[in-house]
Amino acid sequence: MKLKVITSNPGKVIEYQKAFAKFDVCVEHCCVPYDEIQTSELEEVVKKGMSELRAKGLRNFIIDDSGLFIHVLRGFPGVYSAYCQKTIGNDGILSLMKCVDDRSSTFKCCIGCDIDNKTIIVTGKCDGHILYKETGNNGFGYDPIFTFDGKRSFAEMSIDEKNVVSHRGNAVKLLMSELTSLGLINTNN
Amino acid sequence: MKLKVITSNPGKVIEYQKAFAKFDVCVEHCCVPYDEIQTSELEEVVKKGMSELRAKGLRNFIIDDSGLFIHVLRGFPGVYSAYCQKTIGNDGILSLMKCVDDRSSTFKCCIGCDIDNKTIIVTGKCDGHILYKETGNNGFGYDPIFTFDGKRSFAEMSIDEKNVVSHRGNAVKLLMSELTSLGLINTNN
Repeated sequence: MKLKVITSNPGKVIEYQKAFAKFDVCVEHCCVPYDEIQTSELEEVVKKGMSELRAKGLRNFIIDDSGLFIHVLRGFPGVYSAYCQKTIGNDGILSLMKCVDDRSSTFKCCIGCDIDNKTIIVTGKCDGHILYKETGNNGFGYDPIFTFDGKRSFAEMSIDEKNVVSHRGNAVKLLMSELTSLGLINTNN
Repeated sequence: MKLKVITSNPGKVIEYQKAFAKFDVCVEHCCVPYDEIQTSELEEVVKKGMSELRAKGLRNFIIDDSGLFIHVLRGFPGVYSAYCQKTIGNDGILSLMKCVDDRSSTFKCCIGCDIDNKTIIVTGKCDGHILYKETGNNGFGYDPIFTFDGKRSFAEMSIDEKNVVSHRGNAVKLLMSELTSLGLINTNN
């Protein structure tokens, strides 16, 4: 079985290759552009993206979308996290959260998988808080201003440490669990 | 000739009806949902929306999309102005602009018109500045924090005053000019 990871980010492909390593699945990178729609739900973005890719004839593929949802800001930047990171950046988020006590927020990652003419959609979460300043040099995007344990930012953790607790790590775990329980993938041995 | 204005906002329909009043065109309201894609350009949103509507069999219609582009924030909130208004609101924009001297910004409105199997796309603009606090009770959205003349906010002007200078008013003027110069519409008399 081959699964195409459809993304412009090679880092994502490596992560899926690691997750599928012990299964009878070969993960390969595939760059096919698809539209992401404006909506407040990651799952809607993923569902529409999957429809478009299927209409283009693609089968057996994975796409995903992630975002940071800050509760006191009614979910902002949410589905538009990438755009907000490019425009107002972490400084912008810290300005919006100045003098705000409720700093609770949730990172979410939604994965859509088309496999054997079935659709699996899972959403992984990581609850945490927005810090008062940027800390740490690892990771990317909002990692320096997000902490899940109240001690370290995501940018102060190694990739392996982060994967254990992160929204993306949790989404991948949910996907693997769903695929194995439905008998859609099997271990190599 | 009939033109369908495809929108969930009846206020837009009235505006187009006013603009087309002296032409041989009957403007009617039509509620057909279409996806708005994630992109940094209003024109891309409009073009994709028109393709989707044409694929659904619609002909002779108008759609539009608007946004406030703040230069120092790299165009934020831009195409996502409606979402940002619902989440961080004008208070959020004012927080992001606290202690910022360069307050220049541009309201843009892009109109797409499918008429007689031709596509007309125009973009109207209104350059202005972000105020330091909300002022005025008219209008909606970002109107209370935007001034085009440095004296009054959009929310301190009447609808008719605003239409003379606004991005939407300018876009409608450009559309009418384009349609008449191409001979696609004619005056009633």
